[in-house]
Amino acid sequence: MGERGGLDEFALIARLFAPLAAGSPGALGLTDDAALIDGPDGWQWAVTADAIVAGVHFLSDDPPELIARKLVRVNLSDLAAMGAKPAFMLLCACFPVDVGGGWLDRFASGLKTDCETFGVALIGGDTVATPGPLTLALTALGQVAKDHSLLRSNARSGDDIWVSGSIGDAALGLLVARHGGGTLPEEAAAFLLERYRLPRPRIALGQALVGLVHAAMDVSDGLVADLGHICDASGLGAEIEAARLPRSPAAEAALAAGLGQGPVTLMTGGDDYELLFTAAPEAAAALMALSARLDLRLTSIGRMIDGAGVRVVGPDGAALDLSSAGYRHFTG
Amino acid sequence: MGERGGLDEFALIARLFAPLAAGSPGALGLTDDAALIDGPDGWQWAVTADAIVAGVHFLSDDPPELIARKLVRVNLSDLAAMGAKPAFMLLCACFPVDVGGGWLDRFASGLKTDCETFGVALIGGDTVATPGPLTLALTALGQVAKDHSLLRSNARSGDDIWVSGSIGDAALGLLVARHGGGTLPEEAAAFLLERYRLPRPRIALGQALVGLVHAAMDVSDGLVADLGHICDASGLGAEIEAARLPRSPAAEAALAAGLGQGPVTLMTGGDDYELLFTAAPEAAAALMALSARLDLRLTSIGRMIDGAGVRVVGPDGAALDLSSAGYRHFTG
Repeated sequence: MGERGGLDEFALIARLFAPLAAGSPGALGLTDDAALIDGPDGWQWAVTADAIVAGVHFLSDDPPELIARKLVRVNLSDLAAMGAKPAFMLLCACFPVDVGGGWLDRFASGLKTDCETFGVALIGGDTVATPGPLTLALTALGQVAKDHSLLRSNARSGDDIWVSGSIGDAALGLLVARHGGGTLPEEAAAFLLERYRLPRPRIALGQALVGLVHAAMDVSDGLVADLGHICDASGLGAEIEAARLPRSPAAEAALAAGLGQGPVTLMTGGDDYELLFTAAPEAAAALMALSARLDLRLTSIGRMIDGAGVRVVGPDGAALDLSSAGYRHFTG
Repeated sequence: MGERGGLDEFALIARLFAPLAAGSPGALGLTDDAALIDGPDGWQWAVTADAIVAGVHFLSDDPPELIARKLVRVNLSDLAAMGAKPAFMLLCACFPVDVGGGWLDRFASGLKTDCETFGVALIGGDTVATPGPLTLALTALGQVAKDHSLLRSNARSGDDIWVSGSIGDAALGLLVARHGGGTLPEEAAAFLLERYRLPRPRIALGQALVGLVHAAMDVSDGLVADLGHICDASGLGAEIEAARLPRSPAAEAALAAGLGQGPVTLMTGGDDYELLFTAAPEAAAALMALSARLDLRLTSIGRMIDGAGVRVVGPDGAALDLSSAGYRHFTG
């Protein structure tokens, strides 16, 4: 980050913007997946906003339907991480002046698909021209029972650390997108690409975790970096075992084919949009039953401990050194 | 617009995005100043989102404090137009990678000033890098009594048409910014520039108009274009008199000095962020009392009539021809 004037996203938010949130408890210090504002009848609205830029978060020649759907899904993943049920969104779209009608139709069609898939309505926004790259900002709102949303700050010492689905697929998918799959079987390459291009926000899981787990967030910056956020917010440390990270068969094949940097890619790669959460050991049976009901893998990968920071234990029992603990937007 | 592939903002929204709002009454067909979602205890949240781009909506060497404050104010003006009390905002900021720490501090300082001025807290958002121009998207939320917000669609035939403050200042201020003030006295030039750079959202007025007037919106695209939106939404026509448009002394001086195109600039220039509203003739006395209480000029400029579209009557009683009825983003 140093090279670019210290423009680390987290430091920026803490220094410049967090003071503007002071006095609003629902802002959660700008450190959670979404903010909370009062809704009707014992509910709250979880509100989140994310921006994506061509050439940074996606490629300008990516299929327009997929750009739209990824935008929606990335935001809904934040709502899932709060345990909220998605309801509404507002879109600010900055279109390059040479964007064509066909492109726009395909973009809108992608939005429509995912509005229908997730039961979300577009209720507002803005459409402007830009001399720069296509830039999209989406605000999403979802309902959650008042004072029951999943927060990053609620982890307790001794909690098991869990993660949904499989980890590292998206980072490997990005490598496939950039450099091709090499000797990787076509089916595995396609699976990883899909995991990168079209995340599956864990909305049903998020809602089911309310009341069952302590802390939660979604994995967007990389497992270790994101677990670090739970540690910071909860005033605790974490210890996870590299060997317990859930890998998809395609990820196993990719690592075997030499893509990525082994376990480091799994632990620091971003964009998985799985849920990372902590729960009392007594919740394990209920979580396994939930996993069966949702047909979604849930894996315990370690434990919250007193202290600070994330320690990753390798197969030999020694701590792994992760030189780069997660994706940072300003160094992307 | 034809030259750019038909990228008219209003047509775009109607064709591509309005179908995604169908079934959500609070979206108001994406045609009002903000959407409405349920809040606590008989209140609703008015929610609006606007994006601004360097080189399109402001100049990249504009003072960073002013860029921040205009962004906030443009959004709060939408809330004012709904009769809502501003409460929260979320900011998506796409910063060029070469933006400096000093610039960011000044930008945040501008945000802070207006958060304090208007009693608004920043509760979320996103900070990303862009290879393109500085791009900012703000979502603002304000409270309004349930089913009492001011809508564009509520005008009635025979209503008087009113506007707050003075009209055309911002368009003339933009001319001063671009071409200098010419023979215009310095004080007048400074007034017009300020009106362009730092709009004053009519928040107290908006809240006071709830229950007193029928339809309302803010003047951002130009008086005639915006009145046209009220006509469209209400299924009515409008007739206004050019001579009754409220002009500031500085605007009078600017027109006398040859800036702009006379009354056409007043009627088609954007960015005034005054409130335009319609009310039964019987409400006139209450509105004049409100004007006195708020120390804010309120002027009746015409009447809603059966029919469609806006007719502007010149000093000689004949209809004026306005070749360009308002600012369009994609032709900016």
